[in-house]
Amino acid sequence: MKGSVFIATSLDGFIARLDGGLDFLPDDPEPHGFDEFLASVDALVWGRKTYDFVQGFDTWFHGEKPVFVLSSSDLKKPPAGAIVERMSGDPADVVAALEGRGFEHIYVDGGVTIQQFLRAGLIQRMIITRVPVLLGSGIPLFGPLDTDISFTHVATRQYPSGLVQSEYELTS
Amino acid sequence: MKGSVFIATSLDGFIARLDGGLDFLPDDPEPHGFDEFLASVDALVWGRKTYDFVQGFDTWFHGEKPVFVLSSSDLKKPPAGAIVERMSGDPADVVAALEGRGFEHIYVDGGVTIQQFLRAGLIQRMIITRVPVLLGSGIPLFGPLDTDISFTHVATRQYPSGLVQSEYELTS
Repeated sequence: MKGSVFIATSLDGFIARLDGGLDFLPDDPEPHGFDEFLASVDALVWGRKTYDFVQGFDTWFHGEKPVFVLSSSDLKKPPAGAIVERMSGDPADVVAALEGRGFEHIYVDGGVTIQQFLRAGLIQRMIITRVPVLLGSGIPLFGPLDTDISFTHVATRQYPSGLVQSEYELTS
Repeated sequence: MKGSVFIATSLDGFIARLDGGLDFLPDDPEPHGFDEFLASVDALVWGRKTYDFVQGFDTWFHGEKPVFVLSSSDLKKPPAGAIVERMSGDPADVVAALEGRGFEHIYVDGGVTIQQFLRAGLIQRMIITRVPVLLGSGIPLFGPLDTDISFTHVATRQYPSGLVQSEYELTS
């Protein structure tokens, strides 16, 4: 099982404002590989907050990919057409359960969830797109670790809007 | 007066470990523009902690460029050949004093000092080199702000060692 992260952050490492706001992202950036990335995964794993937040959107961006939401309590009803299932347990349990069901590549999203999977050594690839702004506060992408985690740089792409996207693989 | 930052950080935004340690930097990276950058400034402005830390090095990397150390108390004796002067005051005072002495481009270094100058709107250029490792804790490059600060991406360079260096200018 491979776990990947695809996310945008401010230069100071925030993935959203404290209220979840994403107004600092460019309104209409050029395509920067999200569709290709989404096509490469066979399931999504989200934290509960990410699920609740995405429910506020008019559009469901995730097609027919199953979304597993980590939560210990019932979820709000998913949008029409969305395939959503609640799971609970620590990251290793979640990965074992999904492996048992034949999934091979998960897209892990949400600040707390990404941090938990990183700490558990279950993120093999990170594609981080940096927006050229400092926010000063917000929801951080990264958090405390028990030990360093080394990555190998794969590629960096720069976009006319000023976004810079770097792709890293866990150093084996 | 132009203020610039040239610094390396971990992927999670730390410029040093909590004890000041820099062991996560590559031992012997390829040149990545420091000499050219240093040649472009006419003075350095450091926080007191940076000055004290650099005193532990065998080598003084800053040639005959004057180094202004922000501190309210006396400094340790500078290394032979170094031009070091203590200053105090807030960033605007420091910049006004240095402008009055004819300086045009300062290199601002040290986590606290960089944060103070950013908050005061006195950093026009940032060259940030990202090391592909997550540390989980350390001395952060960035800190709280009163408002967003928008930058314009100038260029990003990738190096065989895995370092990725992005250059930004304050959006005018």
